[in-house]
Amino acid sequence: MSDKRRRRLPRDVREQEIIDAALQVFSKRGYHAAVVDEIAELAGISKPMVYLYLGSKEGLFVSCIRREADRMAATFRDAAQAAGDSPEQRLYAGLTAFFAFVSERRDSWRVLHRQAPEQGEAIAAELAAARRAVMEEVGGLVMHGITEAGSATHLDEQDADYVAHALVGAADALTDWMERHPGESPDRMTQRLMNMMWVGMRNVLGGEIWLPPAGTVGVGKKAPAKAGRARAAVPKTAP
Amino acid sequence: MSDKRRRRLPRDVREQEIIDAALQVFSKRGYHAAVVDEIAELAGISKPMVYLYLGSKEGLFVSCIRREADRMAATFRDAAQAAGDSPEQRLYAGLTAFFAFVSERRDSWRVLHRQAPEQGEAIAAELAAARRAVMEEVGGLVMHGITEAGSATHLDEQDADYVAHALVGAADALTDWMERHPGESPDRMTQRLMNMMWVGMRNVLGGEIWLPPAGTVGVGKKAPAKAGRARAAVPKTAP
Repeated sequence: MSDKRRRRLPRDVREQEIIDAALQVFSKRGYHAAVVDEIAELAGISKPMVYLYLGSKEGLFVSCIRREADRMAATFRDAAQAAGDSPEQRLYAGLTAFFAFVSERRDSWRVLHRQAPEQGEAIAAELAAARRAVMEEVGGLVMHGITEAGSATHLDEQDADYVAHALVGAADALTDWMERHPGESPDRMTQRLMNMMWVGMRNVLGGEIWLPPAGTVGVGKKAPAKAGRARAAVPKTAP
Repeated sequence: MSDKRRRRLPRDVREQEIIDAALQVFSKRGYHAAVVDEIAELAGISKPMVYLYLGSKEGLFVSCIRREADRMAATFRDAAQAAGDSPEQRLYAGLTAFFAFVSERRDSWRVLHRQAPEQGEAIAAELAAARRAVMEEVGGLVMHGITEAGSATHLDEQDADYVAHALVGAADALTDWMERHPGESPDRMTQRLMNMMWVGMRNVLGGEIWLPPAGTVGVGKKAPAKAGRARAAVPKTAP
């Protein structure tokens, strides 16, 4: 990369190159072990120039989180919006785009996913903001489904937010599984998740509810014999 | 706690008291900011004695993770086993016990949940082992359901592991939601999650599969008009 040293680049292009380099180094070393010298070397720029452009090591890390979280949220949103009007299609397309993002951009994902909220206030705030943005994106999609379902359901924004947490948490944990099963395509990952979650969500949007099987009396108490699988369909009334 | 200083206690009781104190301090301060002096003070014991019992600050943290992860896995397992034979009842009871654990033992949960795998090798290894133990517990429960479903399904241990990741990830993320909605009981948290997930899982165990709606052609490509919600039931054949 030493020929880069002599190039003159517009500030925003240079900044993006520094962020690219920082992502690689943070992803490989982790936040604590990463050193700005290596980032500067990889970006083909001097260390003082790195500081001039993006401030401290913490500033570099915040810039990485911000850019990659924005890209991830945009990837999800664009795919969902392009996929049509039904919540089912939007969710399917959005999740597939998410898994594709994670498998194509492993460096970004490691930085977003494997860092503690404990690294200092600026970083914690940025990670929290990133997570909130993703939750809002997914929650908005779920709320769209609830609105479309109309009076069939009594669900509100709190329910949408709950569902968003469950979906994002599941997708998040599944990226670890995907890493250990490199043969699984983003599309296949999503089909598996839709099988688990969409069918239940569709029923809930239709006003159905699941209730604990008869005989399930609470945590730790012995329930009398089998009941579950042979049970009748869930009632059509909301709680 | 100064009267504790003079008590003579068996080693294992003393160790548990030190771990109790360490949990509180790690939970309140985070790993990096926590100091052993405060843990010793809270446990009513001298700092050299803390080191003698449980080694370094890292050793203390590893002991906290190990004990609390064991307790959490046991809580899930015992509740599931006591709940009867059906996968539905076991999952419902196990998840309820999990949410109850998290709301009753906030200190433990903060230490298990809000720490990066980046804190050093011993801690990363312990957190990974804890996560694996939980995944195995949940995966075993899902595999039990698959085995019970018999020839209706072509699912195997890899599928069970996928489902375990989705469930654990969802439950994990939902603890944040629960913290912001203190009025929600563990039971209510679980009923919401069962509504989202169990219905789909039950169908999959019965050999049904969800397929992308007609007209959904992939990520980012425009799909032709609506298709999703009015779609016919999913086919009864496995992929």
